[in-house]
Amino acid sequence: MTDMTILILGGGGFIGRKVAQSLAARATLRGQPITRLVLADLAEPAPLDAPFAVETRACDITDRAAVDALIGPEVTVIFHFAAIVSSHAEAEFETGMAVNLHGTLNVLERARLLGTCPVVVFTSSLAVFGGEVPDPITDHTIPNPQTSYGMQKAVGELLLNDYSRKGYVDGRGFRLPTISVRPGKPNRAASSFMSSIIREPLNGQEAVCPVDETQEHFYLSPRKCVENLIKGAELEAAALGMQRCMTMPGQRLSIRQMIDALTAVAGPEPARLIRWEDQPDVAAIVRGWRYDYRFDKALALGLDADASFEENVRAYLEDDLPKA
Amino acid sequence: MTDMTILILGGGGFIGRKVAQSLAARATLRGQPITRLVLADLAEPAPLDAPFAVETRACDITDRAAVDALIGPEVTVIFHFAAIVSSHAEAEFETGMAVNLHGTLNVLERARLLGTCPVVVFTSSLAVFGGEVPDPITDHTIPNPQTSYGMQKAVGELLLNDYSRKGYVDGRGFRLPTISVRPGKPNRAASSFMSSIIREPLNGQEAVCPVDETQEHFYLSPRKCVENLIKGAELEAAALGMQRCMTMPGQRLSIRQMIDALTAVAGPEPARLIRWEDQPDVAAIVRGWRYDYRFDKALALGLDADASFEENVRAYLEDDLPKA
Repeated sequence: MTDMTILILGGGGFIGRKVAQSLAARATLRGQPITRLVLADLAEPAPLDAPFAVETRACDITDRAAVDALIGPEVTVIFHFAAIVSSHAEAEFETGMAVNLHGTLNVLERARLLGTCPVVVFTSSLAVFGGEVPDPITDHTIPNPQTSYGMQKAVGELLLNDYSRKGYVDGRGFRLPTISVRPGKPNRAASSFMSSIIREPLNGQEAVCPVDETQEHFYLSPRKCVENLIKGAELEAAALGMQRCMTMPGQRLSIRQMIDALTAVAGPEPARLIRWEDQPDVAAIVRGWRYDYRFDKALALGLDADASFEENVRAYLEDDLPKA
Repeated sequence: MTDMTILILGGGGFIGRKVAQSLAARATLRGQPITRLVLADLAEPAPLDAPFAVETRACDITDRAAVDALIGPEVTVIFHFAAIVSSHAEAEFETGMAVNLHGTLNVLERARLLGTCPVVVFTSSLAVFGGEVPDPITDHTIPNPQTSYGMQKAVGELLLNDYSRKGYVDGRGFRLPTISVRPGKPNRAASSFMSSIIREPLNGQEAVCPVDETQEHFYLSPRKCVENLIKGAELEAAALGMQRCMTMPGQRLSIRQMIDALTAVAGPEPARLIRWEDQPDVAAIVRGWRYDYRFDKALALGLDADASFEENVRAYLEDDLPKA
């Protein structure tokens, strides 16, 4: 029996936390009992109850020495979710480069020099796509990002592929759809309303929808996202072929379809809490986003999307609704 | 009238030298008389006669301070050709990363901090393509490189695009076809015979063809390559749109078509100097290369390929045949 030490970079974030909880519930990964889980983030993550040892660490991945100290030869699987978000990377170019590009390089270089070829599960983003490419956007479409965040994630994909080809890591990268229903509070991201128009009404609060109900987008529930990331960690290297990065499955939905699902699951009351308020600046940003994606490679590897948005609504109620 | 200082990184290399000679013959670029040309390479390039000031400099682009000293605010146009080649980058991973990735970052970062938004003409490579993508390979096909060199060039494309989008540089990148007829001596590259089977016979020497005459590949003459790079430098930023990098036009040809062109231009004698010798190792590498490329964006911008391989043969005779 092999020692199974798992490291989650970005372990204090929303997806990192949910993956950690899922690992605690499973207690195994890749057919091995989990021996130890290390949760690392810029600020030390909160502790976690689990049937194995859990350590929490503060680590700035822009600091190569800190990364070297964090990742030892005992680390078998690294979930690399650490990043600054799109709007932050766009406003602070140097910070985005330091965290999203050089931080990823620090992790991969540490693994290369260790020579232990850990599994690395990397979260990329559909923000790698855009620009001049035609729809639909497939796994064979060139990343032509129109944000620095998207560029940095696309560079991460190329690095992950080449470090895997060379045998330095066993990488697998997934471009995440927009996560809905995301728990927590609204934030300043233009996509914030794509969760809040469902979440706030389920919490008994009013929410604003700044776009037309025909607006389409590409979604996945947090529950399915975590399931796919765990499946991604468990894939055999040979199954991944010559391209280690792919679009994670999701659903293309209009706002109207999402609200109909809300009503189907929770009755007519929540939807009445949605206030329609045209916000031309938000609407213009969202209209610039692409939503026609294909994800054949991930489907062939056994990853999947929610069967309908009703599943996303139910997952929120079961997993994330604040306790009264 | 604006000062026009041009810098060629890789100015001692074969393409850098030919671009410098072309600039010396033109004496203008982007509608401006050239004031000064700086040729930089790891070893100081040879001097060049020109109707403007020419300086030669030794510069290691992996040394950020050396790059900062080389690139001042007076530099209007940078031709960035500096790189180590595919086989070198594959054998020495760290050297490839240092030169091809961090070297390019050093150049772009210097330009960003100067705030002068120089035009940057970057040579990428068809080595960015490969892996799982279907033929034909278009400007919308994802780079899925199967060499570290290809990965580093693909990262360079992403950086060039984003630094351009942010207004830090005015970049344009071109994936070069295999250059034939390349002047000089055979080298250890698997593609070396793709020039030497034409060049050596024209020089009155025997050459070995290690593959079958039906083997296809994608070619461009050095003359057309240099013309395209100069055109690339002269394009208006607005014409480039949201994707600054593209495949340079070329011709898909079989070895038989190349030899027929040799004979059409130079008579039947040279082709008799080709010795056919199966080299299964070389043939296997070459069979793994892709040759079905589309280059619609470059064509639309006015770049072009040689009209036939007879042009490539004639260009060699006129430009590069060693003086008796």
